Amino acid sequence: MKAVILCAGLGRRLGEVIKPLLKVGGREIIYRTIKILQDNGIDEFVVVVNPRNREYIEEFLKRHGFKYRIVENPHPERGNGYSFYLAKDFVDERFVLVMGDHVYDEEFVKLALKGEGLICDRKPLYVDIDEATKVIVKDGRVERIGKDLKDWCCADTGFFILNKDVFRFVELDKDKIKLSEIIERAKVRVTEVSGLFWMDVDTREDLKKVNRILIRRSYKGKGDGFISRHINRKVSLRLSEIFVNRITPNIATVISFIVGVLSALLNFVSIPIAGLIYQISSILDGIDGEIARASMRVTRFGGWLDSILDRYVDFLFLLTLSFVSSLSNLEWMIACLAMFGSFMVSYTTERYRGAFFRDFYIDFKFRFPGKRDERIFLIFVFCLLSFMGKFVIVALLIIIAVLTNLRVLATIYVVARRKGNL
Amino acid sequence: MKAVILCAGLGRRLGEVIKPLLKVGGREIIYRTIKILQDNGIDEFVVVVNPRNREYIEEFLKRHGFKYRIVENPHPERGNGYSFYLAKDFVDERFVLVMGDHVYDEEFVKLALKGEGLICDRKPLYVDIDEATKVIVKDGRVERIGKDLKDWCCADTGFFILNKDVFRFVELDKDKIKLSEIIERAKVRVTEVSGLFWMDVDTREDLKKVNRILIRRSYKGKGDGFISRHINRKVSLRLSEIFVNRITPNIATVISFIVGVLSALLNFVSIPIAGLIYQISSILDGIDGEIARASMRVTRFGGWLDSILDRYVDFLFLLTLSFVSSLSNLEWMIACLAMFGSFMVSYTTERYRGAFFRDFYIDFKFRFPGKRDERIFLIFVFCLLSFMGKFVIVALLIIIAVLTNLRVLATIYVVARRKGNL
Repeated sequence: MKAVILCAGLGRRLGEVIKPLLKVGGREIIYRTIKILQDNGIDEFVVVVNPRNREYIEEFLKRHGFKYRIVENPHPERGNGYSFYLAKDFVDERFVLVMGDHVYDEEFVKLALKGEGLICDRKPLYVDIDEATKVIVKDGRVERIGKDLKDWCCADTGFFILNKDVFRFVELDKDKIKLSEIIERAKVRVTEVSGLFWMDVDTREDLKKVNRILIRRSYKGKGDGFISRHINRKVSLRLSEIFVNRITPNIATVISFIVGVLSALLNFVSIPIAGLIYQISSILDGIDGEIARASMRVTRFGGWLDSILDRYVDFLFLLTLSFVSSLSNLEWMIACLAMFGSFMVSYTTERYRGAFFRDFYIDFKFRFPGKRDERIFLIFVFCLLSFMGKFVIVALLIIIAVLTNLRVLATIYVVARRKGNL
Repeated sequence: MKAVILCAGLGRRLGEVIKPLLKVGGREIIYRTIKILQDNGIDEFVVVVNPRNREYIEEFLKRHGFKYRIVENPHPERGNGYSFYLAKDFVDERFVLVMGDHVYDEEFVKLALKGEGLICDRKPLYVDIDEATKVIVKDGRVERIGKDLKDWCCADTGFFILNKDVFRFVELDKDKIKLSEIIERAKVRVTEVSGLFWMDVDTREDLKKVNRILIRRSYKGKGDGFISRHINRKVSLRLSEIFVNRITPNIATVISFIVGVLSALLNFVSIPIAGLIYQISSILDGIDGEIARASMRVTRFGGWLDSILDRYVDFLFLLTLSFVSSLSNLEWMIACLAMFGSFMVSYTTERYRGAFFRDFYIDFKFRFPGKRDERIFLIFVFCLLSFMGKFVIVALLIIIAVLTNLRVLATIYVVARRKGNL
């Protein structure tokens, strides 16, 4: 199936920008739409552009290797009905029509593609209802479309599954007809897909809002510890909002790794400062994943490498902290148990996925403390108190050694019980 | 589809035993056959027994929860043709017939089930050809069956896919006819499944042989290091052969864990002895997996737990070795790097499976040293030399620290390159 994407609008409200190429959540609006449609079986994209943006959009489509056909609307001032009309010779019997300045999430698209006609939303959660285009439905078909309707029943999502014969309703007044009038005249069928994420982008506020929503939605919370849920994520999500359109997830990974290594080295200078920077690196550590998910750049390699670097940072911090504390032989043993236990907390849960091909934190509601964000916060607090003497560091090492190794034991226990080995 | 299993033979050559209940590779012969058939779609088993073994076989089938129907042959001396005849009212149009004293591997069964008639093997690799039943084939059908045939073309594997009308050839002389005569008369079709593992068990030597073969076949070599391939496995496979019918994989895991922990504690007594016991625990560590695979007892939980326990043993050994060596502050840092690097070698490859859902050692031919078996052997050798002074232990720690952490770097490099990140 092909999809028609209307990108010929002049979009004056946002000034001299090309709306479909604006980045939200780290990706251009049109990239998001095409990528999601492509992942769900749409194989060619008929993109209607205007003479001003044609060069930019075509270059963009080519660069990403999408299978596209450019249709130029030489009279963009005639409106979207005319743009739509121009696509008529390039579509098959059944096709998708979607607006180039709308953002949809994958769930919405999946459901919409199973529908027919105009996809409408009875409970639009993300759009300003005053600005939205409303629909009056009668017998499952469009009766009226417009912004200022009373007694409307749902909002027009700008997403359509149409048949070619809809073009029959255009011929005579194709120069000035609006898309909504075509849909009205054709009495297109209506499919409801309600309550999922979709938004049109008209203003600077819309841009910010959709960016923020995409970042928030990238945070699943699965596997996060107490500190992460209540402190770290609150900061990292804001930072991700700011940086998502500027840096890639890999760069975020490298930055948080460098800050982490730096924090370990700072133990040679000042333990409290080192602890503070370590806690900051823990906050930064959330950003790569958030940006990766929001910008559709999640890779298995990224997750794998991030885990390995985290282990190195955690190890290095406890190592340098132990070193500058001039531990006794026995205290070094405790330090080793703390480093080892920290490591085992990750190992047991991640090895679980390798063994059972399922996520440990989905399979188990496991409230035992000792996750990375909690450990780092604990270390941070104790580092601040380190002026009181070496015993603070030794106490910290004992707490971590006991906590983490107990957590591993508890993990073995719950898994053994669940898998019928106890 | 149902399967008929003939277990009414008197099996005099092995003395007063019930052949189908003899254990090979840690499992009763009949268990292996039924389990494999069940995993491949056979849903009911018609088991023909004799009055003497009925009680034991029925209790066994019940205990394992197999769906069975017992058919008693009150005259086992009449032979296997009569046993077969007695099954006739309990099968459907198409059914499997298999001998209760034959051992087949899963690959063989999978292919055989796609065939028709008598399953024969042109290149029997595991049976004594003088003792085997041979087949002469004509136009794709059985012409003659017998032990002393000349010009035979393949061996009878004791595995058949038959139609109910084969019983037409029995009626008159059912009291004394042999199974092979029925098959001959019916001119059953022949399907070739050659070169895979199957064997009939007649003598004590056969028993030992099939046990040994099942253990050898349980060893895949995937992921083994140099020392494991050339030393550890040679010993552990022999031990597994001896113990496979006596202990479960979980017990083997616990034994090797206890020996490992013991070796770590022995550092307080004698470093060379500790090193020796550590190397022995490394050999024993192979047994649980070998027994699990040979006895069809592989569980994901077993693999998961074994990995965790291995990490604890490796950590504890280096920890106690470092402790008794009274390391300086700097030397402790090196020791930590060695413990951490040892851990990371497993972490990087096992986290790989969690990320990519593939086995690292299948995806990569990775020759870099530093695997567990190699590290333990190195530690063993240096422990033997520890009488020369503390510097031996420090040198060992440096070597392990460098080797393992370099190996982790190399792992990251090869994965990054393969996944297109370099």
